[in-house]
Amino acid sequence: MHKGSGYFITLEGCEGSGKSTQLKMLCAYLEEKGIDAVYTREPGGTVISEKIRSIILDNENKIMSDEAEALLYAASRIQNVKEKILPALESGKTVICDRYVDSSFAYQAYARGLGYDFIYNINEFAIKTCMPDMTLFFDISPERAFERKGGVDTGDRIELSGLDFHKSVYNGYNKLAEKFSDRIVRIDATKSKAEIFANVKANLNRLGIV
Amino acid sequence: MHKGSGYFITLEGCEGSGKSTQLKMLCAYLEEKGIDAVYTREPGGTVISEKIRSIILDNENKIMSDEAEALLYAASRIQNVKEKILPALESGKTVICDRYVDSSFAYQAYARGLGYDFIYNINEFAIKTCMPDMTLFFDISPERAFERKGGVDTGDRIELSGLDFHKSVYNGYNKLAEKFSDRIVRIDATKSKAEIFANVKANLNRLGIV
Repeated sequence: MHKGSGYFITLEGCEGSGKSTQLKMLCAYLEEKGIDAVYTREPGGTVISEKIRSIILDNENKIMSDEAEALLYAASRIQNVKEKILPALESGKTVICDRYVDSSFAYQAYARGLGYDFIYNINEFAIKTCMPDMTLFFDISPERAFERKGGVDTGDRIELSGLDFHKSVYNGYNKLAEKFSDRIVRIDATKSKAEIFANVKANLNRLGIV
Repeated sequence: MHKGSGYFITLEGCEGSGKSTQLKMLCAYLEEKGIDAVYTREPGGTVISEKIRSIILDNENKIMSDEAEALLYAASRIQNVKEKILPALESGKTVICDRYVDSSFAYQAYARGLGYDFIYNINEFAIKTCMPDMTLFFDISPERAFERKGGVDTGDRIELSGLDFHKSVYNGYNKLAEKFSDRIVRIDATKSKAEIFANVKANLNRLGIV
């Protein structure tokens, strides 16, 4: 997966899956347990990657082609991998990343229809040198997620894409969870925050992190 | 090459090859001849692509990985191709582009050492749907080019890369000119502006544009 001695954990899921809440709970928990961890996100995570993020998510850039979007995500990712994620893993730290290459497969390969091979090719360096030890997929359908969230964020270009798009993303995640069942752990995200977090902790425990 | 009825011409060469001067002369000439032409540049050419350009060329981003740089160039390119270049070619216009995919091969594949396949893969859409009818390679060694220019632009991240880097770029262009000898026309850029432009015009004439 990667040559570091630390653990690399990624969090995945549709908009409104509760991923960010669980990330915060996870950060607090690891700190409490004295685990030396690095938290990062995609797109973003480094100064350059955050500049790329601002182009991707800017609502003014509606005319952006699907291919340009996918390439920008890949550029942001590789910078984060080389500058931050791999060095942290190599120094034995645990790295928690909010979204990673599975997001590109779910959103761009499946939902935007760019295909698995294109996304694989443009992300080949990350896929070959830095794959997660475990990916937590917060599994909730977009219908239930948006209902729980009380609608979409109209300032975010991706959230504005409509329910059909988000359903395709969800279908993409389900395909990935089947294809990479050794790595991707399905977390029932329709449950309460506490129940979801108990499941997250059980999986970290299974991996031997805490 | 591409499905448009217009002609697609790209200009390539090392820093200081006189490419920009020739581009200006070419614009004036085509306008004088009443040719409906669109001028664009890489990275850049559209609002989104120019935002990407500003990240690539910003001297503050020295820590940028070679792979991130290549992906940003590819993102800028695909946006320019889909939003501006292909629509113009399809409406029968002549498109003149200052740098294109050969720059990615010369700078990233050869000089940065990322390899031909990686650059091909991330630029596959542009390569398969929108290749130039003719590429003018302004052939002058970096030693002579920088001498003529009177040094490097210290505000530009790429120009700052040093003479060895620019020599590798030049070697890359020479390999490309051999490999794609049907498309790439070598223009002796050590000559006077007027002589170089006479050669440019002769090539446009050969293609049937003017």
